Amino acid sequence: MVNQNLKADTLALHRMHRGKIEVTSKLPVDTAEELSLVYTPGVAEICREIAAHPEEADNLTSKGNMVAVVTDGTAVLGLGDIGPKAALPVMEGKSLLFKKFAGVDAFPICLDTKDPKEIISIVKALAPTFSGINLEDISAPRCFEIEEQLKKDLDIPVFHDDQHGTAIVVLAGLINALKLTGKSKESTKVVINGAGAAGIAIADLLLYAGFRDLTLVSIEGVIAEGADWLNDKQRELSLKTNHRKVQGGLDDVIDHADIFIGVSAPDLLKAPQVKRMNEDPIIFAMANPVPEIYPDVAKAAGAAVVGTGRSDFPNQINNVLAFPGIFKGALNKRVRNITQDMKVAAAEGIARVITDDQLSPDYVIPGALDQTVTDAVAKAVEDSVIENKEPLAQC
Amino acid sequence: MVNQNLKADTLALHRMHRGKIEVTSKLPVDTAEELSLVYTPGVAEICREIAAHPEEADNLTSKGNMVAVVTDGTAVLGLGDIGPKAALPVMEGKSLLFKKFAGVDAFPICLDTKDPKEIISIVKALAPTFSGINLEDISAPRCFEIEEQLKKDLDIPVFHDDQHGTAIVVLAGLINALKLTGKSKESTKVVINGAGAAGIAIADLLLYAGFRDLTLVSIEGVIAEGADWLNDKQRELSLKTNHRKVQGGLDDVIDHADIFIGVSAPDLLKAPQVKRMNEDPIIFAMANPVPEIYPDVAKAAGAAVVGTGRSDFPNQINNVLAFPGIFKGALNKRVRNITQDMKVAAAEGIARVITDDQLSPDYVIPGALDQTVTDAVAKAVEDSVIENKEPLAQC
Repeated sequence: MVNQNLKADTLALHRMHRGKIEVTSKLPVDTAEELSLVYTPGVAEICREIAAHPEEADNLTSKGNMVAVVTDGTAVLGLGDIGPKAALPVMEGKSLLFKKFAGVDAFPICLDTKDPKEIISIVKALAPTFSGINLEDISAPRCFEIEEQLKKDLDIPVFHDDQHGTAIVVLAGLINALKLTGKSKESTKVVINGAGAAGIAIADLLLYAGFRDLTLVSIEGVIAEGADWLNDKQRELSLKTNHRKVQGGLDDVIDHADIFIGVSAPDLLKAPQVKRMNEDPIIFAMANPVPEIYPDVAKAAGAAVVGTGRSDFPNQINNVLAFPGIFKGALNKRVRNITQDMKVAAAEGIARVITDDQLSPDYVIPGALDQTVTDAVAKAVEDSVIENKEPLAQC
Repeated sequence: MVNQNLKADTLALHRMHRGKIEVTSKLPVDTAEELSLVYTPGVAEICREIAAHPEEADNLTSKGNMVAVVTDGTAVLGLGDIGPKAALPVMEGKSLLFKKFAGVDAFPICLDTKDPKEIISIVKALAPTFSGINLEDISAPRCFEIEEQLKKDLDIPVFHDDQHGTAIVVLAGLINALKLTGKSKESTKVVINGAGAAGIAIADLLLYAGFRDLTLVSIEGVIAEGADWLNDKQRELSLKTNHRKVQGGLDDVIDHADIFIGVSAPDLLKAPQVKRMNEDPIIFAMANPVPEIYPDVAKAAGAAVVGTGRSDFPNQINNVLAFPGIFKGALNKRVRNITQDMKVAAAEGIARVITDDQLSPDYVIPGALDQTVTDAVAKAVEDSVIENKEPLAQC
């Protein structure tokens, strides 16, 4: 699977530019007068103003538009625990996309510690510089504890993109795929293969959005009430999913499923299994770079809609459709938390970018470079804040 | 002293731009192919390369050119302990100046903790993203412990600018002022008024550079061996300074001094005291915004050379002359520590920017916006690394 050209091209590009992001000035400093305004003595007036009115930091500094992209490098792409230094290229890429799509400034913070308590206390200490925290590529189940505690302790939004970004784009794709296949979220049977950070967040969001019949399958087996290997989040979901109390593996739950969502590993879904699903099954096979099943195989076996994580197949489930707009909307409204309502609104915003006329089996999810998506998401998030009267962050 | 125009102008400027820095992309991402190079799937190749060869992070990411500007907001300008959020405008300004003068990327890190041990552990955890740590506006004596421990524990340079940046520019100014007045560093009597972070670093560097007769005066009195109120750093200096073992205050040590260095508070040096100094005294009165003595008063009392911290008088002692070039040179050579030798070399580099023909009482220190200074300092630092065979940083 290694594409030698891709490897050579990406290495050359990164080496030539020495990475991807830089920190630049928003204003000129060419004269003594300008220097006296941006630095001493003028800057003291800005300090005094913020000391007296802390909420003014959002208006008088870069804080109001600045997000930290925080990782410990324990679950980077499909590469696993490669450490904070090797995670930096991904976090830089993320920062670049924040700026490109949303005009939001973002800065990579790659932490040389894996201790959840230390990560929590560090991020809390870093908060004065930022108005949002994007957690990234932190392994499960550690990521749950870290995100939950930070959401409690901080008055700025905290969002683990591997969980919620993925969940939002999956929901967006499902909204359109269900419309196309004439199925309803209330009556479809959903199998989620993979019960790590993404699988759990997808299950949470689908339940919140109105799906009723979900079954999760982890590498240890079907998430079932009472299994002794469940982590806290899986145990919580075991009470809300798998109503038929099936035990076993994927093969034991795939019959008559309408939707397969793969956030697991290559080649785990086979053509005969697709044939055992209900008519017009929807398959989102997101393992990267090799999906749980290739689109041509899934379609030959009867799949109505297929999405993957890859840019070279139709319907790419790419978080870049969600996180820039989510944070843009959240920062514009200065919300304290990104709620489930905002996530559902964001998914609906993404789905609506594709009109009924445009909708087709190969186009249920907008392209990753579609410039209209971020603003659609940001607006949907902002509107949901107004509707739900989400309390504003206290600065 | 409040200049209402300055206040209104600087507030308007900061509000209009919403702060001063932004995080931007070094390269375009307009096509699917470009996206695949800077983000998934291509970026995985960069991650793999760094996981296998960690030293490549300096070449393949922004880390190699990225400095953290770290503060806890405890000693911001002359404003004192105003906290991390109110300190951000200064750190942003510093980041902007790093980029403008040295092309070095710098990012503000304003920490919501005052515990030195916690600050140390946080900065260590942040290190994978950075190739240098500029500590800023951290109060004494906490700053000494923080800097010393980080220098021991990290393999990238750590530099408390309030100490060493100030010391370097003072030494640069003294080199030229001594040349102008025909005095020598070995035979001059130096009084440093102020024994906080800056005063102590100035004393350390002047001693290292060859000055022999120094006396420090703190707000508690003259730094003298055995005084029971000394902090560790002051105690250390009490053994190397004040050879005449004078006790008391500034008034007890000013007689026959050649050099007065003020890093203290407004109006602490009076004209009659200047008259009691040796002929052609050199006065660097750096309290901001109101100096220990105004230049016109000092000159009327006989001062040969006067410098202040202010841009509206000649000979401004401004750290911006030092820190950009120091870090540029240190990053270019990937040094592990910024040594006293490098600091002396930097001071000599700044001093040499003014030729013998140009040298005058009102021009012993280059202007803060002199574009030639940073490269002169960087080159001096780099040359001193070669001369001294400073070990390179291990990545």
